[in-house]
Amino acid sequence: MSKNQKGITAPKDQDFSEWYTQVVQKAELADIRFGLAGFIVHRPWGFFIIKKIYEALEKEVESQGHQAFLFPRAVKEEHLTKEAEHAGFIPEVLWVSEAGTKKMDERFALPPTGEAQIYPTYAMWFRSHRDLPFKGYQTRISVFRNEMTTRPFLRGREFLFFETHDVFNTHKEALDQIQLDFETCEKVIRQKFKIPFFYFKRPVWDKFMGADNTFTPDTLMPDGKRNQLASTHDLGQNFAKAYDIKIKNKDEKEQFPYQTCFGPGIWRIMAAIIGVHGDDQGLVLPFDIAPTQIVIIPITFAKKPELSKKIIQKCKELEKKLSKDYRVKFDDRDFSPGLKYNEWEMKGVPLRVEIGPRDLEKDSVMLALRVGEKSPVKIKSLDSKIKSKIKELDKSIENNAKHYMDDRVRDAKYLSELTKIMKKHRGFVRVPWCSIEKDGEKCDDKMREETQGARVCGTLYPKEEKVSKSSTCIVCKKAAKHIVYVAKSY
Amino acid sequence: MSKNQKGITAPKDQDFSEWYTQVVQKAELADIRFGLAGFIVHRPWGFFIIKKIYEALEKEVESQGHQAFLFPRAVKEEHLTKEAEHAGFIPEVLWVSEAGTKKMDERFALPPTGEAQIYPTYAMWFRSHRDLPFKGYQTRISVFRNEMTTRPFLRGREFLFFETHDVFNTHKEALDQIQLDFETCEKVIRQKFKIPFFYFKRPVWDKFMGADNTFTPDTLMPDGKRNQLASTHDLGQNFAKAYDIKIKNKDEKEQFPYQTCFGPGIWRIMAAIIGVHGDDQGLVLPFDIAPTQIVIIPITFAKKPELSKKIIQKCKELEKKLSKDYRVKFDDRDFSPGLKYNEWEMKGVPLRVEIGPRDLEKDSVMLALRVGEKSPVKIKSLDSKIKSKIKELDKSIENNAKHYMDDRVRDAKYLSELTKIMKKHRGFVRVPWCSIEKDGEKCDDKMREETQGARVCGTLYPKEEKVSKSSTCIVCKKAAKHIVYVAKSY
Repeated sequence: MSKNQKGITAPKDQDFSEWYTQVVQKAELADIRFGLAGFIVHRPWGFFIIKKIYEALEKEVESQGHQAFLFPRAVKEEHLTKEAEHAGFIPEVLWVSEAGTKKMDERFALPPTGEAQIYPTYAMWFRSHRDLPFKGYQTRISVFRNEMTTRPFLRGREFLFFETHDVFNTHKEALDQIQLDFETCEKVIRQKFKIPFFYFKRPVWDKFMGADNTFTPDTLMPDGKRNQLASTHDLGQNFAKAYDIKIKNKDEKEQFPYQTCFGPGIWRIMAAIIGVHGDDQGLVLPFDIAPTQIVIIPITFAKKPELSKKIIQKCKELEKKLSKDYRVKFDDRDFSPGLKYNEWEMKGVPLRVEIGPRDLEKDSVMLALRVGEKSPVKIKSLDSKIKSKIKELDKSIENNAKHYMDDRVRDAKYLSELTKIMKKHRGFVRVPWCSIEKDGEKCDDKMREETQGARVCGTLYPKEEKVSKSSTCIVCKKAAKHIVYVAKSY
Repeated sequence: MSKNQKGITAPKDQDFSEWYTQVVQKAELADIRFGLAGFIVHRPWGFFIIKKIYEALEKEVESQGHQAFLFPRAVKEEHLTKEAEHAGFIPEVLWVSEAGTKKMDERFALPPTGEAQIYPTYAMWFRSHRDLPFKGYQTRISVFRNEMTTRPFLRGREFLFFETHDVFNTHKEALDQIQLDFETCEKVIRQKFKIPFFYFKRPVWDKFMGADNTFTPDTLMPDGKRNQLASTHDLGQNFAKAYDIKIKNKDEKEQFPYQTCFGPGIWRIMAAIIGVHGDDQGLVLPFDIAPTQIVIIPITFAKKPELSKKIIQKCKELEKKLSKDYRVKFDDRDFSPGLKYNEWEMKGVPLRVEIGPRDLEKDSVMLALRVGEKSPVKIKSLDSKIKSKIKELDKSIENNAKHYMDDRVRDAKYLSELTKIMKKHRGFVRVPWCSIEKDGEKCDDKMREETQGARVCGTLYPKEEKVSKSSTCIVCKKAAKHIVYVAKSY
């Protein structure tokens, strides 16, 4: 941040859209000026956090026995269309059809998800029930989808991807994996990144194309829109049949195996970290994922060069000491301390250490929290103080996020009530619902019209909430079989 | 490897091409049956090694102050052509020009290297000499190039990439970075992966398009072809001028900064590991990069179930113990021990522990090296024995590779002599040469014709060999200014 560059000027609560754009650009998470619509540059500060998201997911899926592989970004045209329902993706697919100055003999697609790339190869890899279960994943890849409206970390023509593709002998094993995917979301998204979510079983009319069932952890952005953070799919035998993946079972009979796939939205998790944790000053980050965890800022005076030298010296000592355990930056640039405070706050640095003349005298520092107070700390007790402040900070981020989410769930029993709530409410509404099978879709369509965009997210999973016996569907008035959550989405 | 699958059937020395293809497929490094020419599937075994290559490079460049970022895979058409010489890449560029069923309003390219993607953004990022030096890199990306003939890990239409892009205030700093890039190659390629190479300054007619100078570490594949493992470019101010990257220097005057970029060939290093270290049994891997470092194989007998149970038990104990320090696999599949030996040898597992009835009796195991002997070891001394065997193994891989390379350099003083040597020799030839500036190119063309493909690789760098005063160019007979290395290449 140079001297004449301002901090975040939009208040998060009142103008989330502008606030979000400013944080993305000014905190140097991404550069949106690349020049091609829907393509962004991941800048070092933002990309560091992205890497933390990837690493956390890699660790979890590897502990479940997943092996990393890498398929081409390309896919053969004939493979794209094999699973009839899945072929619904085609309108969004980008095609490579020219090379140099010539049209290619065989064009190929850049698909938004890996099924059509991976499953023809799976058909060659697995022959026997002994080859299964197989758990594979690819990470740190980018995929393409032709989107019309795009936003950084929420929707892009190119976005970052991670996907597991698992194959099992039995449906029971597949369902166990779905449970593990749920636990991955709990451990990584909720516990590590402090993002609260509801885990939904999606209605059949909104599941992944080709899947039997889709499950998603969804959080809320401050504008009230649902942010789908990941998706897990029970693919049944659908893709095995389409791509001819067959194995000999224990009785030497040919059988189609069962498949699951799990795709955490790397970008979506990033967007949630920005949107859920951030405040009017900018980014707020859990300690572990901050690119710089502690910034040290000297308070020096041009008129007192000897004293300033001593302060700088003390800062350097601290930098060296703290760097053993933390990612530390000593900011000795020729700017005012206040300007530096604002910049590092905007970028979400969790802890700030300030050293000025009075601190030097007392052999102490000022320790400021990104979320919380600032207080003097004796240097000899700095180590233990930092440890406790980290816990305090993370706890406060977690509590804020939880409170934020709890505060954004309402109940409605009548469509008129829901419509009224949706005019002002930025969040989920719990409503009684007739069916999340195909026959419930027309109620969803009607609700969307009445509420200008609210849709059924799904029922809670793994433990569905009970609907009271007398409840009726908020739209069609038939007996309600479910409590569903309703929200607008991106 | 199932029972009826054979090991490597081609002898490496006599039919390298077939040997290489078999190792790639049978050791499960890549699957070449993806169905689109020039696209391969990186299988888990091979991809593990690839990740090790990436990690080693990331560690080195980060220690030099490089920050990871990620640019889109796409590039705007107008940015591709800004640097006139660099635009020479265009015939190899793939274009995305269709979306769904429609032609796109603005097509974009998938470029083989990042300059045209990155430098227009650099022009927005840097304003002052204070913003420099800036060192950025992107890793774990794949790029596209429209190649006609392709081979796994050597040449593909999609291949794995890593690139640094650095910007400096002075040319001196840029040259210092070139030196650091050279040291990265030494540390990673030579010391860690045990691949010997010559580091060349390339002749101007074969440098990177748009660069002032190009430097490359080149090794030899067993078929005698030069394998360029990386390239470092002194870009001077060429790209800064083309992409309008300007900074205000200390005197507040506008100035074009100096740039370098460094691109280790992830695939090329992988190809060298396969080709240089491998033997007739298959892959040979330095201990640190092997996906499985130690395999434990039980020698059991169906007729002695009690004894077999004890052996299995002992294997499991060892697996648990060794897993604390190493990547260990206990192979208890229902195949014969011999078949298992062959499979893990083919895949390059460095150490094998066998336990049979006699070993159990003596409280010992058989310890077999992938490269070397097999001997009995008491279990109580297994730990220290493994440590010393790892060193022995790595040393022997290193020595073999060094010997292999030393053995493949010849000298020639006359073109007729070179032509004769090149008919049988699979390697480099050192020859006196007139000039590695533009005026030397016609001699290179003539030499290529006479020798059916031998070209000038360059002069040694950083320390060029001295040419004796009376030497004359092997082609034009003018006074020789350099000793150059000559070889055929892919």
